[in-house]
Amino acid sequence: MSAAPPRRKPKIRKLVVIGVGLIGGSFSLALKKARLVRHVVGVGRTRKNLQEALRLGVIDEAVREPALAVRDADVVLIGTPVGQMPEVMAAIAPALQPTTVITDGGSTKQDVIGYARRFLPEHFDRFVPSHPIAGTEKSGASAAFAGLYRDRNVILLPQHETRPAALRMVRSLWEACGARIVRLDAKTHDEIFAAVSHLPHVVAFALVSMLAQRPNASTLLGFSGAGLRDTVRIAGSSPEMWRDICIANREALVDLLDDYMEELEVARGAIEAGDAAALTQMFQRARAARGRWLLKSR
Amino acid sequence: MSAAPPRRKPKIRKLVVIGVGLIGGSFSLALKKARLVRHVVGVGRTRKNLQEALRLGVIDEAVREPALAVRDADVVLIGTPVGQMPEVMAAIAPALQPTTVITDGGSTKQDVIGYARRFLPEHFDRFVPSHPIAGTEKSGASAAFAGLYRDRNVILLPQHETRPAALRMVRSLWEACGARIVRLDAKTHDEIFAAVSHLPHVVAFALVSMLAQRPNASTLLGFSGAGLRDTVRIAGSSPEMWRDICIANREALVDLLDDYMEELEVARGAIEAGDAAALTQMFQRARAARGRWLLKSR
Repeated sequence: MSAAPPRRKPKIRKLVVIGVGLIGGSFSLALKKARLVRHVVGVGRTRKNLQEALRLGVIDEAVREPALAVRDADVVLIGTPVGQMPEVMAAIAPALQPTTVITDGGSTKQDVIGYARRFLPEHFDRFVPSHPIAGTEKSGASAAFAGLYRDRNVILLPQHETRPAALRMVRSLWEACGARIVRLDAKTHDEIFAAVSHLPHVVAFALVSMLAQRPNASTLLGFSGAGLRDTVRIAGSSPEMWRDICIANREALVDLLDDYMEELEVARGAIEAGDAAALTQMFQRARAARGRWLLKSR
Repeated sequence: MSAAPPRRKPKIRKLVVIGVGLIGGSFSLALKKARLVRHVVGVGRTRKNLQEALRLGVIDEAVREPALAVRDADVVLIGTPVGQMPEVMAAIAPALQPTTVITDGGSTKQDVIGYARRFLPEHFDRFVPSHPIAGTEKSGASAAFAGLYRDRNVILLPQHETRPAALRMVRSLWEACGARIVRLDAKTHDEIFAAVSHLPHVVAFALVSMLAQRPNASTLLGFSGAGLRDTVRIAGSSPEMWRDICIANREALVDLLDDYMEELEVARGAIEAGDAAALTQMFQRARAARGRWLLKSR
């Protein structure tokens, strides 16, 4: 068996990461490790996080102003919470070179694509919307690590205007990070992730928020075990990032929240009525679905 | 520094475990490992699970009839789902020796104590209600392991009738399993665990149940990541066991479900209205509480 010819690897002279957190920082570290990038400029709002990013070698240079940073950039990754993207795009638009390729790491795509159409009209054909399905509950540059994207899916959502060369470039960068590429349209993307990511975050945040407001909250949490700990791990995630995601994807998310509250009502009714058969049916359905899903994800 | 005198360890000639699952099986394995028990008799409803328990050395002898098994037992642990306990207690009551000490591993305590008062009236002073705060989402004898209780809390709920010698015996057995002993009254216990254990299970079961019923369920779950996986880990737990717990503790649980659904309504309203401040407040409250709690549990 002869090996396939190696993919042509892009050489990036200058990568600009706007928002040097878990997503942007890990992208930088992975490309540095793959020796695909020579110089990484990080842009961020807080001096402390940028200094930490410099200290940890996540970036090589820190700049506060996005417009200054992106001059002569080959590639720009926008890794901020989605709510900040309109402002970031508007700020960099006049300073971008015509050849610069732009991508993002936002968790919602219809809104981000709309922002790019509006605020990056001259560069929209070199903007490749992307969503890496990776993350932890930690945030900030210190949470970044080169292996975050290894064997993870990255969704790419090229539009009909997107130049093939820009798509190839972004694809090869994510592949160099160790990711698998998946293509989806933006509406399908937003519906899927409302269900499997945005809703679970609201479920977890609301659960801890409710428990935290009880008069005996600290006693309660002192008695909790591994079950609650895992169930609410993602309630440690960035409030700002998730607030933006929830609002950006509000339509799909509100529908799912309604379905979820309806299911909780069914559970509540069965518990109150002592309806063992109805509860068993729900719990068995859940256990079986989880089992099939774990089997598939191996 | 001189060592404290060693606690007097009880020698159990015959331990009977009724319900040889994760809880009962791990109790047996831990006491065997500590060399505190000579002979363990397992009682169960399915031949297959008992044979597996024998094969794995979780028990030394399998018996189908509880009344036959408990004759000349020193200690009996009832490790069945709480819904089966009345029947088990009624079955063993006529066959117990006057000296036999009885305990249980049920996750709800007001109901179990009530059952014991009613169905074990002659032995109620040797019944020591207990609840080990340990478990995984797995069930059955094959899930049992000797280290399950190491450094975990075990709640003991002696009643005013409970003989001190029976309490000491049960306490020393759980300590020999590596557990820390905590005392609570039954009502407080049930309220606390409704919040930190029973509610999270309903939250997780209902979430997967709802997702599993969507037309695109298998696509959805194919795109899910670590967030959803951890959030719903406990939806892999035994439906029968959790059905019983939910119904046994229905009063406290329904109250908490109402509070939780109210919190979800708040989140839903904020998302629909695009109320960033309200969402930020909820998510930050949750993240801060989770952070304090993790800090404490170290």
